[in-house]
Amino acid sequence: MRNKMDSVGALLLTTQEDISYFSGLESQFWHSPTRPVFLVLPSNGAPIAVVPEILAESMCLTSWIQPESLRTWPAPVPEDDGVSLLQSALAEALARSTTGKRVGLPMSIESQLRMPVADLDTIRSNGVELVDAVPLIRTLRSVKSPAEQEKLRFACSRTSDAYESLPFLLELASLDKRGEKGTGPQGFLTERDVAREMRIELLKCGLDQAPYVIARSGAGGYPSVVDGPTDRALNAGDVLVVDTGSTYDGYWSDFDRNFYVTEQDGDQSIPAPIALAHEQLWQATEAGISAARPGATMADLHAVLKVSLRDAGVDASDLDKIMGCGRWGHGLGIHLTEWPSLVSDEHTVLTPGMVITIEPSLPLPGNRTLVHEEDILITEDGADVLSRRAPQEMARVRLPQ
Amino acid sequence: MRNKMDSVGALLLTTQEDISYFSGLESQFWHSPTRPVFLVLPSNGAPIAVVPEILAESMCLTSWIQPESLRTWPAPVPEDDGVSLLQSALAEALARSTTGKRVGLPMSIESQLRMPVADLDTIRSNGVELVDAVPLIRTLRSVKSPAEQEKLRFACSRTSDAYESLPFLLELASLDKRGEKGTGPQGFLTERDVAREMRIELLKCGLDQAPYVIARSGAGGYPSVVDGPTDRALNAGDVLVVDTGSTYDGYWSDFDRNFYVTEQDGDQSIPAPIALAHEQLWQATEAGISAARPGATMADLHAVLKVSLRDAGVDASDLDKIMGCGRWGHGLGIHLTEWPSLVSDEHTVLTPGMVITIEPSLPLPGNRTLVHEEDILITEDGADVLSRRAPQEMARVRLPQ
Repeated sequence: MRNKMDSVGALLLTTQEDISYFSGLESQFWHSPTRPVFLVLPSNGAPIAVVPEILAESMCLTSWIQPESLRTWPAPVPEDDGVSLLQSALAEALARSTTGKRVGLPMSIESQLRMPVADLDTIRSNGVELVDAVPLIRTLRSVKSPAEQEKLRFACSRTSDAYESLPFLLELASLDKRGEKGTGPQGFLTERDVAREMRIELLKCGLDQAPYVIARSGAGGYPSVVDGPTDRALNAGDVLVVDTGSTYDGYWSDFDRNFYVTEQDGDQSIPAPIALAHEQLWQATEAGISAARPGATMADLHAVLKVSLRDAGVDASDLDKIMGCGRWGHGLGIHLTEWPSLVSDEHTVLTPGMVITIEPSLPLPGNRTLVHEEDILITEDGADVLSRRAPQEMARVRLPQ
Repeated sequence: MRNKMDSVGALLLTTQEDISYFSGLESQFWHSPTRPVFLVLPSNGAPIAVVPEILAESMCLTSWIQPESLRTWPAPVPEDDGVSLLQSALAEALARSTTGKRVGLPMSIESQLRMPVADLDTIRSNGVELVDAVPLIRTLRSVKSPAEQEKLRFACSRTSDAYESLPFLLELASLDKRGEKGTGPQGFLTERDVAREMRIELLKCGLDQAPYVIARSGAGGYPSVVDGPTDRALNAGDVLVVDTGSTYDGYWSDFDRNFYVTEQDGDQSIPAPIALAHEQLWQATEAGISAARPGATMADLHAVLKVSLRDAGVDASDLDKIMGCGRWGHGLGIHLTEWPSLVSDEHTVLTPGMVITIEPSLPLPGNRTLVHEEDILITEDGADVLSRRAPQEMARVRLPQ
């Protein structure tokens, strides 16, 4: 890889995250797929931004790229939607290069292309030779600067606030819905209602956006932690999981919380198998946090989680059935999920400034699951938990009677 | 184009919108860039979904794709992240084909690729010949079914509700902030506050998500309608624009509203140049709505807007300086902005079921602008305005004194 990157004279970036990371551009306009945006990072000299005219003001307002390095065109132009301009910018960058004449583009695992394939084909057919820039960029991005760490800390802290208010808000919402519907304590608050309440609370708590809010429920566990919310109504005896990826200034929190649903004046005790699984996951996470330090690898953490679960009595066969293929965490930053994965064959070494999630899960009878998650920052001598640690015993959502 | 598509034996789709449109898959997991998702649509026989194991439950829950047409792999697998499986699915689809052996992929304008370029290269180097599927898919998607129309109508109606509440909510928020800060009627409510209030209200009004909420302000107009919100505080005499793209069941509303900021007991009159520009835009939109009917082209609508503005006294030179290159609207549906563009050289003919925005803008002195926008459905005999028509005179936001 090193040899290949040594021959690179410029990087070409097309996605929101890569362009924001290297230019500072802050924009919601990425939601419009009409226009591509390009950033060219020469190995020598100033970056060149090739952007639609309509984004010029946003570039000037939020990016550190100098106006003289801004190239604009009146997109959309079907016959040449920035391609000629991009080719000139690449040529300009490569002409300055003292390293090589190839162009680095994120092309491999976990990468996407936010420009038409046909336009990339044109550039390649005109002689631009591409090299995969994923290894370089993911390594750079995995270590967070102090400013990035503070944004992540804020996002996680405010997300914790929202989780702490949630049971109370759900009880209120349930009362309101009972009023609407006439009678009956249960069956009125749906997973969709839960997600809506959580999303509103996240914004009130200071997050800029709450793009990812999962709510899923069921007796004896939930079927998955990545789908929903559905129209399923909560009932006493359910386990409810809420998982969110919410952003502050472009940086994501990503952790879940489990709740046990009861009747307000009913039995508050959690069934033993659920309480046990939650305790096993909580303790495994605790072990993972303790083991997370510079020098340890993601594979080491994975082994620590597995040993903790096994020592706590989880069946080896259950450990082989883990949802999500035993991916028990991942990097966190300007994406909801970033490299590296917390899996058994990922030997990336943790270094200070990396932010990762620890997310062990267990299968439960009836194709159900329980998932627990925290976000941590690797420090000089260990790990700092950015999310406020989940209560060791599941919080209750008490439906009014 | 027709000839090329006749030779196609299957479509390959990789993006959230294309896959959701053709399979029904509903998921928030697209926010995680770690794993690609593939949908293969054979010209003959059932679609094949090639998805990460972790998404299998979501596919079963929300998609009409049959379980026997589901292929899963334990993503992420760096050495082969679904590529072999995808190649088998394509081979299976092409073997069934009675039309041709090429694969349609959206490759041209307004398209993106949600899979690694290197993996697409592998598939091409193994003999798969690609043809651009953009013209086919954008035409299909541009005409909305009755069910799609109802979702868009709901999204627009509830977005209108939020806009109507906004001035009152901003006055309340301003009172609250005055309380926090001690004294003074102005300078405390920032564009960020406005966007947050609007985002929360949109969720309360029944939208599922409010991904795109712009707030921008200034005396004599605002600098752009696509950037912000910033930390700029509102002051009496400002024009405030709020623009949102908010979704209900995956379908977007997209329209803005302009507000004039005053002191509660101060002068409520809008300066003549601003009032005039707003009236010109409101009337141009009215003319556009009247002219929108089956048989008219987007270019026809563009001409109608231009004539209306010119007849209302706008300088020809001002009409040439329009922000966004005179793109005065666009298709609307499962993307915030869809084909076709409302521009002078877009000769696509309107047909019943198309949903578009009409979005004329005017330049104002000092590099300022004013933009007005509505969402309409083309019906058998004209147009149905899905957004609740903006008041002809700008609403006021009255800051407490």
